[in-house]
Amino acid sequence: MTLIETGVPAADKVAVLGAGSWGTTFAKVLADAADATGADRKIHLWGRRAEVVDQINSVHRNEQYLDGISLPATITASTDVSEVLKGAGLVVLAVPAQSLRPQLSEWKPLLEPNAIVVSLMKGLELGTDARMSEVIAQELGIPASRVAVVSGPNLAMEIAREQPTASVVACSDAETAAAIALCCTAPYFRPYTSTDVVGVEIGGIVKNVIALAVGICEGKQMGDNTKASVITRGLAETSRLALALGGEAHTMAGLAGLGDLVATCSSALSRNHTAGRLLGEGLSLDQVAARMTQTAEGIKSGPAVHELAGKLDVEMPITAAVVAVLEGKMSVDDLGPRLLARALKSEGDY
Amino acid sequence: MTLIETGVPAADKVAVLGAGSWGTTFAKVLADAADATGADRKIHLWGRRAEVVDQINSVHRNEQYLDGISLPATITASTDVSEVLKGAGLVVLAVPAQSLRPQLSEWKPLLEPNAIVVSLMKGLELGTDARMSEVIAQELGIPASRVAVVSGPNLAMEIAREQPTASVVACSDAETAAAIALCCTAPYFRPYTSTDVVGVEIGGIVKNVIALAVGICEGKQMGDNTKASVITRGLAETSRLALALGGEAHTMAGLAGLGDLVATCSSALSRNHTAGRLLGEGLSLDQVAARMTQTAEGIKSGPAVHELAGKLDVEMPITAAVVAVLEGKMSVDDLGPRLLARALKSEGDY
Repeated sequence: MTLIETGVPAADKVAVLGAGSWGTTFAKVLADAADATGADRKIHLWGRRAEVVDQINSVHRNEQYLDGISLPATITASTDVSEVLKGAGLVVLAVPAQSLRPQLSEWKPLLEPNAIVVSLMKGLELGTDARMSEVIAQELGIPASRVAVVSGPNLAMEIAREQPTASVVACSDAETAAAIALCCTAPYFRPYTSTDVVGVEIGGIVKNVIALAVGICEGKQMGDNTKASVITRGLAETSRLALALGGEAHTMAGLAGLGDLVATCSSALSRNHTAGRLLGEGLSLDQVAARMTQTAEGIKSGPAVHELAGKLDVEMPITAAVVAVLEGKMSVDDLGPRLLARALKSEGDY
Repeated sequence: MTLIETGVPAADKVAVLGAGSWGTTFAKVLADAADATGADRKIHLWGRRAEVVDQINSVHRNEQYLDGISLPATITASTDVSEVLKGAGLVVLAVPAQSLRPQLSEWKPLLEPNAIVVSLMKGLELGTDARMSEVIAQELGIPASRVAVVSGPNLAMEIAREQPTASVVACSDAETAAAIALCCTAPYFRPYTSTDVVGVEIGGIVKNVIALAVGICEGKQMGDNTKASVITRGLAETSRLALALGGEAHTMAGLAGLGDLVATCSSALSRNHTAGRLLGEGLSLDQVAARMTQTAEGIKSGPAVHELAGKLDVEMPITAAVVAVLEGKMSVDDLGPRLLARALKSEGDY
């Protein structure tokens, strides 16, 4: 471990745990950032599956998750998590939200004592309603100042294709956020820093649920007028939840709030948007799951968001409607008209 | 003229001046609203061109602007503006923004003395930087309480196809806004009321300029991450201008701000978005104009918005970049990277 100019311990070795599309893409960003600045930094990627790891090491590709993308040769991969974590001052986590806690308890003894942990994950833990940064701090027993999150209008495939993208790195400790931002500033990836971890995480979580709603409207052949109304009211209910948890309105109007929501709801690359569209077209949840290669987080996080909103007495009508559809209590035919009527009724209420 | 329940004089005859896509669509909304409520209200549409007017009267269609849409037979059209204005308690204006003032001076003697005037127009007058509601009040010499605006995520063609849409009717007099909203509540069109005329108008004006920027990014093959960043920063600069003019932040986060911006920037139906895309693909302004059947308001309003922002000392970097492109002072190749760098620099600044 070395010190970089901000005085926060950063890493000459970075571990990225999770070789799905976002984990692999972020490993590429870190490698390209090191290359661009001439930093001597090694990027080690852990993946569960030997064939993915072998492909990354041998031909520098991850065809299943990033079709057609060449990865920097400086990324090495392994299925051995202890090897990947050894000596890593920065640990980036990109595993499915609901499996984070059991995995952390397994990984805890392997982490370097002063490692900084970065979450790329967007979900609430079912049962506890904990955000990913909270699960990390609790499970590893480390202070919030050593846990950061990265979120923004960040469709992984576009970043992997090196299309210019901005993002937000949030940590309660501003210097830690700045140090991480330095590590991941690549020519095509520009991170901005924030100390509003709650706002950045809530933006990233709820947008997946709103994207399901927008997808359902699209599957039902509703137009851009309706979808724009759902996005507008969706950001309003996301902001209400973030504020109730101590987040800032400011964050919700920025890249990690509005920006991420619009990118996710616009893109055919978004899993949640796609899952919603398939539901809107009349497929069952099982049929949707069978069609998709990766998890649509919103399907799992939706009920947790709904539960959290209930506890805090925050009105989230779009989330409630999506959860009712997921639970089979509302037809997708009723969702659009219901949301529109509701949007009107509550335009005045932020 | 009769009184409706809110006590504001409303109309058993409504004049709609302007038979383009939005004017014709709004005439349809008014006719369908009257039909739905059983109101005995006549909708008279003025158009400049005899062939358009004849087609509306004979086959109830306006093929040039609303291809494939059947209009209610209760809409009658005329090229004689005095005939259309006679007895009309509600006058809806849908003409190109820059020709409004000269047309009003011609129409002023023909208007009923107590008529309420509704603007569907989205533009700033070049030279004066006046909003359309200001031009109306000045030119007709009527109080602001008799001038209203309608704006929201309202792509005309989707409404003409009766896809569910929400909108905002704004007037400084809340009762007038409510009376107009009653007149245009159709099964597929749900107006909400506001007294923030400034916010609603500024949202509708600046979104056309931001849509040009997003279109240019699209024409340059930039992805949804970049476009979402431009939309996010675009709403921030729109809000700064609205606030400087006395508008409300609240409005900008609602249907007439965020909602309209997202609908316009998402849709292939938006003229401004399309014009931007063609510019991004390398066409000249003249070539773009030749390709389009209707005005892209943002091309004309952009310089006026830029000028107004300068007078008020409001930073509007996206508008400035779009104006530089329109004036040939910046290449479309430079616009995207410039906006992204700028977005980062100023994320903290609202």
